[in-house]
Amino acid sequence: MGSLDTNPAAYASFAADVDAFRPLDADDVRSYLHKAVDFVYDYYKSVESLPVLPGVEPGYLMRLLQSAPPSSSAPFDITMKELREAVVPGMTHWASPNFFAFFPSTNSAAAIAGELIASAMNTVGFTWQAAPAATELEVLALDWLAQLLRLPTSFMNRTASGRGTGGGVILGTTSEAMLVTLVAARDAALRRSGSNGVAGITRLTVYAADQTHSTFFKACRLAGFDPANIRSIPTGADTDYGLDPAKLLEVMQADADAGLVPTYVCATVGTTSSNAVDPIGAVADVAARFTAWVHVDAAYAGSACICPEFRHHLDGVERVDSISMSPHKWLLTCLDCTCLYVRDTHRLTGSLETNPEYLKNHASESGEVTDLKDMQVGVGRRFRGLKLWMVMRTYGAGKLQEHIRSDVAMARTFEDLVRGDDRFEVVVPRNFALVCFRIRPRGGGGDAMGGGEAAAEKANRELMERLNKTGKAYLAHTVIGGRFVLRFAVGSSLQEEHHVRSAWELIKKTTTDIVGEDK
Amino acid sequence: MGSLDTNPAAYASFAADVDAFRPLDADDVRSYLHKAVDFVYDYYKSVESLPVLPGVEPGYLMRLLQSAPPSSSAPFDITMKELREAVVPGMTHWASPNFFAFFPSTNSAAAIAGELIASAMNTVGFTWQAAPAATELEVLALDWLAQLLRLPTSFMNRTASGRGTGGGVILGTTSEAMLVTLVAARDAALRRSGSNGVAGITRLTVYAADQTHSTFFKACRLAGFDPANIRSIPTGADTDYGLDPAKLLEVMQADADAGLVPTYVCATVGTTSSNAVDPIGAVADVAARFTAWVHVDAAYAGSACICPEFRHHLDGVERVDSISMSPHKWLLTCLDCTCLYVRDTHRLTGSLETNPEYLKNHASESGEVTDLKDMQVGVGRRFRGLKLWMVMRTYGAGKLQEHIRSDVAMARTFEDLVRGDDRFEVVVPRNFALVCFRIRPRGGGGDAMGGGEAAAEKANRELMERLNKTGKAYLAHTVIGGRFVLRFAVGSSLQEEHHVRSAWELIKKTTTDIVGEDK
Repeated sequence: MGSLDTNPAAYASFAADVDAFRPLDADDVRSYLHKAVDFVYDYYKSVESLPVLPGVEPGYLMRLLQSAPPSSSAPFDITMKELREAVVPGMTHWASPNFFAFFPSTNSAAAIAGELIASAMNTVGFTWQAAPAATELEVLALDWLAQLLRLPTSFMNRTASGRGTGGGVILGTTSEAMLVTLVAARDAALRRSGSNGVAGITRLTVYAADQTHSTFFKACRLAGFDPANIRSIPTGADTDYGLDPAKLLEVMQADADAGLVPTYVCATVGTTSSNAVDPIGAVADVAARFTAWVHVDAAYAGSACICPEFRHHLDGVERVDSISMSPHKWLLTCLDCTCLYVRDTHRLTGSLETNPEYLKNHASESGEVTDLKDMQVGVGRRFRGLKLWMVMRTYGAGKLQEHIRSDVAMARTFEDLVRGDDRFEVVVPRNFALVCFRIRPRGGGGDAMGGGEAAAEKANRELMERLNKTGKAYLAHTVIGGRFVLRFAVGSSLQEEHHVRSAWELIKKTTTDIVGEDK
Repeated sequence: MGSLDTNPAAYASFAADVDAFRPLDADDVRSYLHKAVDFVYDYYKSVESLPVLPGVEPGYLMRLLQSAPPSSSAPFDITMKELREAVVPGMTHWASPNFFAFFPSTNSAAAIAGELIASAMNTVGFTWQAAPAATELEVLALDWLAQLLRLPTSFMNRTASGRGTGGGVILGTTSEAMLVTLVAARDAALRRSGSNGVAGITRLTVYAADQTHSTFFKACRLAGFDPANIRSIPTGADTDYGLDPAKLLEVMQADADAGLVPTYVCATVGTTSSNAVDPIGAVADVAARFTAWVHVDAAYAGSACICPEFRHHLDGVERVDSISMSPHKWLLTCLDCTCLYVRDTHRLTGSLETNPEYLKNHASESGEVTDLKDMQVGVGRRFRGLKLWMVMRTYGAGKLQEHIRSDVAMARTFEDLVRGDDRFEVVVPRNFALVCFRIRPRGGGGDAMGGGEAAAEKANRELMERLNKTGKAYLAHTVIGGRFVLRFAVGSSLQEEHHVRSAWELIKKTTTDIVGEDK
């Protein structure tokens, strides 16, 4: 940082600082980062003993930290002390091996190192020219992952025969992947339906199973679709809560018959609620009748498809338009990293391209490069490809498959434990590493919605709340087919089988306190 | 990671790995991170000597790295070696002190440390309960920054008198801030204009100066606005390319008279092209006549407003609906960190809220907490508040102001150097740390668009390309009032005054090669 400001007012504030401020001094960076690494080491060593869900009340932090920003600088040790003493006690510890809620945010040494280096380089890769290696490494990492997933080459940036029309981009969230593909599909549908500007938007319809993540319905609203035209197709136990293609066809046909324009179908592989799987190929066949865009949301379970034994869940993917999956969920890559693949990148860039003068350059004009800003919402973008590449480069397909299989094996162990106790039931088939279970209703069929069900809901809520209050486990719930169900999601990266067994012991004991012993 | 899978197919792949794979083993994490820290240290020590803009051709990386993912694991040193040998030579070095392009992505030791710790904790703070401390620290950091900016308390989450209706959220990009506020404004305009569903969207109009970042026009299209209803208000030298409120009024009034619904105005403080400043207060007064939402994009220059001498650029902000600024640009916080403040959070959450069963919890239902997922596009979110808080906590207002003033002083130095050489002209007044200059047209007035202008454009393009090819400086261009102009953006965090002076020497010498000596 350069010379001092000669403005007297500014000078006054410099009086105490004889040395110029160098925020990126290499020795300071090393010193701060070593302190941060020590923190991370201690954190991973101790996180198991911390309450997974903290017992803090809303507003707790405001009472611990000053409400106004400091006017003068402080040693970094003070910052770290406040982190340890005020922030850590209020964290929900996603890294804890006793975390079983939502989906785990898996992580690895290679990913964190990659993120650190990306933060330090701090490039903004909006165009190829602005960061050639960042753009190309992202593209390469996406192509590697496509090969691990055995995606058709039509989704790859580069194949043995050169550049195709397909490609990918790393985004922050699945929601963004949905949004940008919805917008591309919307614009295509407006064009083919002869809309005058956006006037025809009122006729465009979109489709997804009722188990689809709520963020899909939100993305539709963001893109301007009419809430009345967002179809949520009911599912049931008959399809294990997967989308029924016959029902989809019926609804789409009715809309088409009514003069509406079926535009987009979202199919999910591994729903958030219960890990249900929509049949991609059959969905694509139905959608093709209406020229509707098909997107596959495989945010969580996509990672499992790097193992041959799970790959069948993606059968038919060669007939969809786009697919997204998030290595930040189950492929050991810290947040955020959602990979979106499309079969025809021009359909995306046609809706998302911008070309301001200050970003023009020869490489972009040559048409030989991909400017990744044209496949996302924003312009700026982090160097996310580095960590994803580092994960695959360091661990290789073998270790990554081992990681998936180990999690699934632990989930199977938990499932077997649940099945071995008559007080419980597994509510839907376990597809991946999520077990949906509950205390069975007493004195009646498990499917009845009578008094037995109300009591069961009460008991299961009670179980969840007591468990979470112990700080020794954290799990979340869902509702499937009207039933309140506990979700036990295996796979937090520090987790080992003994954590799963300990959690089960705690669940059994707590259940005994609530409903009594197993008969 | 737990027990081995007993499935024989899976077992086969484990045969070579007797030890279970532990991707987050604390010792491995420490070891990998120490290697990464060493890399970062060496990088900052050496980046000055690397070509700022690499001389690589499209596809270079594909030729250096294998095209298929490795099947087995490798020592992390191999990954680091490939990073050093294949990736670094293809990077555009935004961290170089010789980087003068676009806007600098400023950074600091505290920010990188914060990002590292956030990556390791890897929390997903969609709801308060999912990460109480992450939510509260983000809210606190935003309130601190609001105080540094002297924003009215109506934009703060907490004030001395408790929780108000305003608040903020950290997003990834300015584009997302524009998009979510556009959607909120769109929905409000549809409601107040009595639209049947989204049918009324064809009547909604949005406004911005022609200098507004192209991502605004893209965000409008993402949100479903009709391209024909997106008004780009011409600007000129008379307002230094800032938005003229009288012209805005004229266009909005004409639309209203034609039965259209003026919905949203985007004002910019510090445009990307030339750092023009739209007059916020006057724009707000015009927009108020039509109940249109006013958003202020202060992505770059907002940071300067922590200094009293620059704060006047935000005068009138108390009358706008939302403002966003990006500490990842000029407040020493590595990517990504865009702070969005709104005066009424309910107007945002009304359009963005989702409430899936699996995220329901007592804290959310109490209404006492902010679930930040309801103020952004996606659900998942990184713990971005940590690095922003660490920057303010460690450096304090004093050092941050010193940082801004030092950059501005260096830009002033450069400006003086340009003004001291008759071959050049400064094209628009320098408001912050960006100097827009060019080689003057010869043999005629600088404003003439005749042959002198064409030759000047050629000379300036030549100058830029020659400079960038040296690897000793990187700067970008823009077009202002039809003139091709070079942008010299000061402030890369390793930059000192001698780098600015060296760049100027290089510019002078190269210009001499192109157009001859100063007379």
